[in-house]
Amino acid sequence: MTKFHKTRIRVRYQETDKMGVVYYANYLVWFEVARTEYFKSFGLSYRDLEDKEIYLMVASVMCQYKSPARYDDLVSIRSWIPEVKNSSLKFAYELSMGNKAIATGESVHVFTNKAGRPIRIPEEVTKRLT
Amino acid sequence: MTKFHKTRIRVRYQETDKMGVVYYANYLVWFEVARTEYFKSFGLSYRDLEDKEIYLMVASVMCQYKSPARYDDLVSIRSWIPEVKNSSLKFAYELSMGNKAIATGESVHVFTNKAGRPIRIPEEVTKRLT
Amino acid sequence: MTKFHKTRIRVRYQETDKMGVVYYANYLVWFEVARTEYFKSFGLSYRDLEDKEIYLMVASVMCQYKSPARYDDLVSIRSWIPEVKNSSLKFAYELSMGNKAIATGESVHVFTNKAGRPIRIPEEVTKRLT
Amino acid sequence: MTKFHKTRIRVRYQETDKMGVVYYANYLVWFEVARTEYFKSFGLSYRDLEDKEIYLMVASVMCQYKSPARYDDLVSIRSWIPEVKNSSLKFAYELSMGNKAIATGESVHVFTNKAGRPIRIPEEVTKRLT
Repeated sequence: MTKFHKTRIRVRYQETDKMGVVYYANYLVWFEVARTEYFKSFGLSYRDLEDKEIYLMVASVMCQYKSPARYDDLVSIRSWIPEVKNSSLKFAYELSMGNKAIATGESVHVFTNKAGRPIRIPEEVTKRLT
Repeated sequence: MTKFHKTRIRVRYQETDKMGVVYYANYLVWFEVARTEYFKSFGLSYRDLEDKEIYLMVASVMCQYKSPARYDDLVSIRSWIPEVKNSSLKFAYELSMGNKAIATGESVHVFTNKAGRPIRIPEEVTKRLT
Repeated sequence: MTKFHKTRIRVRYQETDKMGVVYYANYLVWFEVARTEYFKSFGLSYRDLEDKEIYLMVASVMCQYKSPARYDDLVSIRSWIPEVKNSSLKFAYELSMGNKAIATGESVHVFTNKAGRPIRIPEEVTKRLT
Repeated sequence: MTKFHKTRIRVRYQETDKMGVVYYANYLVWFEVARTEYFKSFGLSYRDLEDKEIYLMVASVMCQYKSPARYDDLVSIRSWIPEVKNSSLKFAYELSMGNKAIATGESVHVFTNKAGRPIRIPEEVTKRLT
């Protein structure tokens, strides 16, 4: 039973490039905002996790660009966790404006300690997110 | 017969995050620097292409993170074009420091006119890059 | 009679640096968000202005840093226009968290046409903002 | 007897915005690159300083924008230290392309320990920089 979350992002001028649209790397920044909000909406604070020296290292990311977003657009990001393993999880993202698909993406994250060693996903996390 | 190019990037303080390593979206910025330099090394200017209203729209990107890069590191980016189609091409990237793999990535780009419509890859481009 | 506006910004992970705090250039990005919201709150859309080929070129900016902001902090930005001239205006910003001052800043912007030539501030702007 | 240093920056596509020019906050990123290179050219590594838990906190910054820089431009940054106090110093920057002034700027930095408390400028720094 997957839990979904929806965040909204107002496009900043800084996020555009000379083509007049959002620069492609900024979608990954929005993914990160979506993850933070996802955690928060299910009672978890990623900031608190890091304060306890639990880190989420990114292992991979991919993004498919469907239609450009522009300055001052309000982009919706639907995010969910399609896959959980022992020490890693996958996030998926769907970005849209009204009926128009903007982009889709996925990222895989490994839970690690401060030294960067993989650890089992803490129970407080699995309990809340899955 | 694939052509390779090598660029070097000095990690900026701005590119790091509170984990002390390079923030994951910045690898895509480096991919872009590598593409610009790749074009230049084979006698093409992406800036000139845009001045002629020929654009390279990104269709997709993916990145796998192997080992973190840190402030003031000198990262090597090896880039090449593993695939060319009628109106699109794929770039591949290998990031390393000495013998250590930092990341690998790929991005697909579609040639378009100013209106965003796909166009055949201009002959001056195919001639130089392939 | 000065009009004030208040915006709130949630600090993104991307905005932090290896010192664990918000990287200093990102305050200027927040100033830009504050300007967009300031305009909007008084019935003006900066996006529409640019669509009419009216641009706001930045002439200068300054920022004083009082206390660092961190990931996931909610920063308040109070903005206002302390000075209006024939073709330029000055924005002022106060950033805070609760009672704690985070930063103060100012930026001067010149209204220009597409060619970058200064123009008188459009009446629709002065009427709304002052 | 002031020491000067010159760095060169190739403008990245990511650094442009929808106006077609470099986004104003990115000049501060270039200032940071200039500082890193300034230190290095006089035998100091800012990275090593931080490894010894000596930090340079920014207290203020200002920038005046003269003429826009564009994608793929090669911008020269001349930097120097016009002022040194007990625990702080000021950097100054002149950005240009050929004879054309791009921008000028200044930033003030305070030396601190890890807790953010001001400390006297380490002797190894004053000896090298002044």
